[in-house]
Amino acid sequence: MKMNSTIKVGILGFGGLGQAAARILNPKQEMTWVATADLKGYAYCETGLDPDQAIAAYYDQGSIGYCDPYGALSNNSIQDLLETKAVDGYFLALPNLPNTFMADVAKQFIGSGWRGVLVDALKRTSAVEQLLQIKDELAQAGITYLTGCGATPGLLTAAATIAAQSYAEIHSVKITFGVGIANWEAYRATIREDIAHLPGFDVETARGMSDAEVEAFLDKTNGILTLENMEHADDIMLELAGICDRDRVTVGGVVDTRNPKKPLSTNVKVTGRTFEGKISTHTFTLGDETSMAANVCGPAFGYLKAGMALHRRGIYGLFTAADMMPKFVK
Amino acid sequence: MKMNSTIKVGILGFGGLGQAAARILNPKQEMTWVATADLKGYAYCETGLDPDQAIAAYYDQGSIGYCDPYGALSNNSIQDLLETKAVDGYFLALPNLPNTFMADVAKQFIGSGWRGVLVDALKRTSAVEQLLQIKDELAQAGITYLTGCGATPGLLTAAATIAAQSYAEIHSVKITFGVGIANWEAYRATIREDIAHLPGFDVETARGMSDAEVEAFLDKTNGILTLENMEHADDIMLELAGICDRDRVTVGGVVDTRNPKKPLSTNVKVTGRTFEGKISTHTFTLGDETSMAANVCGPAFGYLKAGMALHRRGIYGLFTAADMMPKFVK
Repeated sequence: MKMNSTIKVGILGFGGLGQAAARILNPKQEMTWVATADLKGYAYCETGLDPDQAIAAYYDQGSIGYCDPYGALSNNSIQDLLETKAVDGYFLALPNLPNTFMADVAKQFIGSGWRGVLVDALKRTSAVEQLLQIKDELAQAGITYLTGCGATPGLLTAAATIAAQSYAEIHSVKITFGVGIANWEAYRATIREDIAHLPGFDVETARGMSDAEVEAFLDKTNGILTLENMEHADDIMLELAGICDRDRVTVGGVVDTRNPKKPLSTNVKVTGRTFEGKISTHTFTLGDETSMAANVCGPAFGYLKAGMALHRRGIYGLFTAADMMPKFVK
Repeated sequence: MKMNSTIKVGILGFGGLGQAAARILNPKQEMTWVATADLKGYAYCETGLDPDQAIAAYYDQGSIGYCDPYGALSNNSIQDLLETKAVDGYFLALPNLPNTFMADVAKQFIGSGWRGVLVDALKRTSAVEQLLQIKDELAQAGITYLTGCGATPGLLTAAATIAAQSYAEIHSVKITFGVGIANWEAYRATIREDIAHLPGFDVETARGMSDAEVEAFLDKTNGILTLENMEHADDIMLELAGICDRDRVTVGGVVDTRNPKKPLSTNVKVTGRTFEGKISTHTFTLGDETSMAANVCGPAFGYLKAGMALHRRGIYGLFTAADMMPKFVK
């Protein structure tokens, strides 16, 4: 059992990302995983849930609500959880689709009267735009909401913000990611989100695909998804942080759905002009052995901890992964 | 002339770094360089000083105090400046030697009743330790002091803090820098600081070297300084930020005092263990075309801007470049 002074963390969503988040929290001294909700239920234990038991309940019986004795089945699992249980901050490990989903969940938090820190790892620019529309409501509700705090956007956006400091003007921010996963079915929602970026697909068509249809599609591409000029919120986050216009930010990558080895090293390249007129490029490259889960959940909890410090000081509202950095001076 | 809403910035010290800082500020819309002090005088102009004119006065007559009509000669230039002139924040582009110098200057600020933001780009662990001793006084005085906000510590420490997010445990942070400068005499203080890190030298002996002695020493090394296991404040900053114990942080590099081309690409490597037990390394590499001045002053002003936001919210005290980041969760 952890000390009472730890941050009580909830995880909303219990797919691949939510489960990895639970495992990451398990050994932490400063945070305790106390709550999770999925579509059919929720579980809560003030002194900490057990990842093995919770994951077993989810796979064996279809919901974390079956996790004895801490689970409860509910058709309003998020609502029930946040109205009755003490949680300091939530990691929203929810599907990004539909695009309005994260903002709709945020509205549920606002409506419930809950106060605390929310962190998401969303990807789409348009999803951040949905959140921007409710930023005043978040501030008034006493919620400190940190958006885009996964790997990209998140870790790489933060690195780009740091890198930008050397330059008087930023010419381009180029993010290229490689993801390798052994089995796409562990990341059903994420893979559909990736497919939605491909020519001929959109968010709705990708979301509507059955598992068999996804499988058939991946057979045709040999399990590889090559993504270019993706709609990725790194662009709006860097624009909001004053680094550069969003059209100077590009995101692309290669996802191998049949091999845990990354097809290329994930990196961000920040090119700019120094005050002396030199053009140069800083590069931040992730180690190939780090998984998507490590690169998403680690930053998410880092931001959650930083968000707790803001919340304690009465600083509420909407912030991005890039806002929490030294500022770019124009 | 810039708008009155810009941040009024002072630069203390007008050697190579202070002069570069003035040039970097000149095109900025959000900041105005209004004040500088050197050993013999100071200059102040509320609507902005002219870098060309100030640098000419410094070189032609030996002090910025000769910069007509804004200059004044003084044996207490810092004191006179900060007691009489309106400045929102200062970049302390002062020599790091002696080690107590930055803390002594901070005490002058505290004693004067001035309130605002201070940013330094100091290098030594022991210099940060001096500042830690007066952190309560800084907070009580209404000063937001950001230390270690140059290139290393600073830019690279911040990148290491970001990189650490992917890992459950950090095994090592290894900073390796390359610096190339055409002419060591433009960075007299910095080069003496570097020499002080070499075997057989210390802070006092290096500081006591005449220009001719430095010149003679550099002749023996063909202008190259190779530095290993340097006492660098990245270690204490990463320890204070909870990333890892200071003995896991190493800093070294190569300085070529006779060639503006960098002898190697400056980089930081962060090695750790992920929650799945994988060992991996993230790498952040600076573009070779970026100068030391760009990599020091850019971050310093980025932190100064961030510090202004803290100060406006009433957040005072001592912070490091690593504190301003998403937090590492233990």
